[in-house]
Amino acid sequence: MKKVRTALLGFGNVGCHVVEALETAPDMVLAGIVLPDPDERSRACHALKDVSVVSSLERLTAVDIAILAVPSRCVPEIAPSVLSRGIATVDCFDMHGEPLSRLRACLDAAAKEAGTVAVTAAGWDPGTDSTARTLMEIVAPRGVTYTNFGPGMSMGHTVVAKACEGVADALSLTLPEGWGLHSRHIYVKLKEGYAFDEVTAKIACDPYFVHDRCSFFPCDDIKAIADSGHGVRMERLGSSGATSNQRLVFSMTVDNPAATGQVLVSSARAAMRQKPGCYTVPEIPPIDFLFGDREQLLKRLV
Amino acid sequence: MKKVRTALLGFGNVGCHVVEALETAPDMVLAGIVLPDPDERSRACHALKDVSVVSSLERLTAVDIAILAVPSRCVPEIAPSVLSRGIATVDCFDMHGEPLSRLRACLDAAAKEAGTVAVTAAGWDPGTDSTARTLMEIVAPRGVTYTNFGPGMSMGHTVVAKACEGVADALSLTLPEGWGLHSRHIYVKLKEGYAFDEVTAKIACDPYFVHDRCSFFPCDDIKAIADSGHGVRMERLGSSGATSNQRLVFSMTVDNPAATGQVLVSSARAAMRQKPGCYTVPEIPPIDFLFGDREQLLKRLV
Repeated sequence: MKKVRTALLGFGNVGCHVVEALETAPDMVLAGIVLPDPDERSRACHALKDVSVVSSLERLTAVDIAILAVPSRCVPEIAPSVLSRGIATVDCFDMHGEPLSRLRACLDAAAKEAGTVAVTAAGWDPGTDSTARTLMEIVAPRGVTYTNFGPGMSMGHTVVAKACEGVADALSLTLPEGWGLHSRHIYVKLKEGYAFDEVTAKIACDPYFVHDRCSFFPCDDIKAIADSGHGVRMERLGSSGATSNQRLVFSMTVDNPAATGQVLVSSARAAMRQKPGCYTVPEIPPIDFLFGDREQLLKRLV
Repeated sequence: MKKVRTALLGFGNVGCHVVEALETAPDMVLAGIVLPDPDERSRACHALKDVSVVSSLERLTAVDIAILAVPSRCVPEIAPSVLSRGIATVDCFDMHGEPLSRLRACLDAAAKEAGTVAVTAAGWDPGTDSTARTLMEIVAPRGVTYTNFGPGMSMGHTVVAKACEGVADALSLTLPEGWGLHSRHIYVKLKEGYAFDEVTAKIACDPYFVHDRCSFFPCDDIKAIADSGHGVRMERLGSSGATSNQRLVFSMTVDNPAATGQVLVSSARAAMRQKPGCYTVPEIPPIDFLFGDREQLLKRLV
């Protein structure tokens, strides 16, 4: 069996779990890690043995697919250039307020021109949760689905809070209020010379936070409260045909970056099985994400 | 928009919900109902207005797809002959103990030869539950999934119990014991001249019942206890990459034949979007089952 040679771009919270997920995938192999920043490279070299850590993708040979474990904001810039070299991409793009459709159209054009595949927004939400929402509508097409996140640390929101001027460190917890509404508790360690109320007022205005009830707490030791557990509970109240009271729930509690890293790796496998173009998770046959003989998988799962 | 002309074969518990699901599908239309039995035809004519009820599929014109709302045991006989006429099929085949692979291979050959599509085992279990099980493995590839059914009436088990010699009427309830184990309560109304213990011993030996703890109860009025609610709770204890304690749950409580009828109709839509061949539900992109503009669906669901 020829293994899928996978490059990893980025080695943060998600990236290190991508490495672990690749190690447990019998059909995939890590070709190397791409980190333009020298400090990040030395950190990755220190953490991993027998892994090529390089400054650019060209320094790796015979790469089939690149997993972009980079901030969402960097995906629209990085993915097209990777695709243009005929290398497939998988990303976990998640830009609150930013439409996915523009990125999807851009990646679709780039992928088709190079005869390769992009899988985008392939984390757990957006990603596998998107398929769960779709699945619930197959059974009950009319109705309302409520997506309740948490309790747990939101990585995206934490990144935004940390990036705010005057913030030395931060952590944003997502707390479900039920029926799709959330509150957020944001713990903030300030840089010297900044005022708590001014800094937190700025965070509250960011598109990531503006729709939710936010409470801010000063905190001098963010590491002491950090836990990467997270979860979701999606409920659909709907009808099948003329019949009401069909009730569906999909829920999970997970280590957040581990789940994201695994979905990226599962999606890389699925990418190798699609025709050229860009796909989101619910546009791909679910069975394509799994390792193993198709007949045996269907015997077990159907 | 050209609507998908759909023939319905069978008009039992599931069939009448297929009619209702088709009525709520903006892109589909009921071409007619096929019932070889004259008594069934007159019953269907009585129940429905402005619907063609015919004795054979040839009597309907320009049929795109046939939904087989017939007992599972009849699917292997009926589906290939429909496919051979270039008409797609959807069935909710569910044969306990009988491998799906043989039927799938047979339908795949028939569908490809005629350049059409078969979707098989397209109810809620097997069917949408199969996709839910697959989805949970995308997030957590190592681990165990427990499928717990009920509480509710099993239509398949009820049909088997009713078919047993000496049984005038019967109803089989599936009761979850947790962790994938079930008990069954079977209510039996005997024909005159039969012994309760002998008849129920025979039912208990059927492949549908032989693996479960069965309790039998005499019942003179089966209709008085019949309720078509059912449910499932699937739990996965698994790992993402090297990270344990990933916990996923998919559950629902539904009107059973209404859910099956709706999944059949959603699957008929999906069938029209696949290349020739035979598919189970997890082999089809989930988005293909839904009505609506692709971009709008993705915007809402991803």
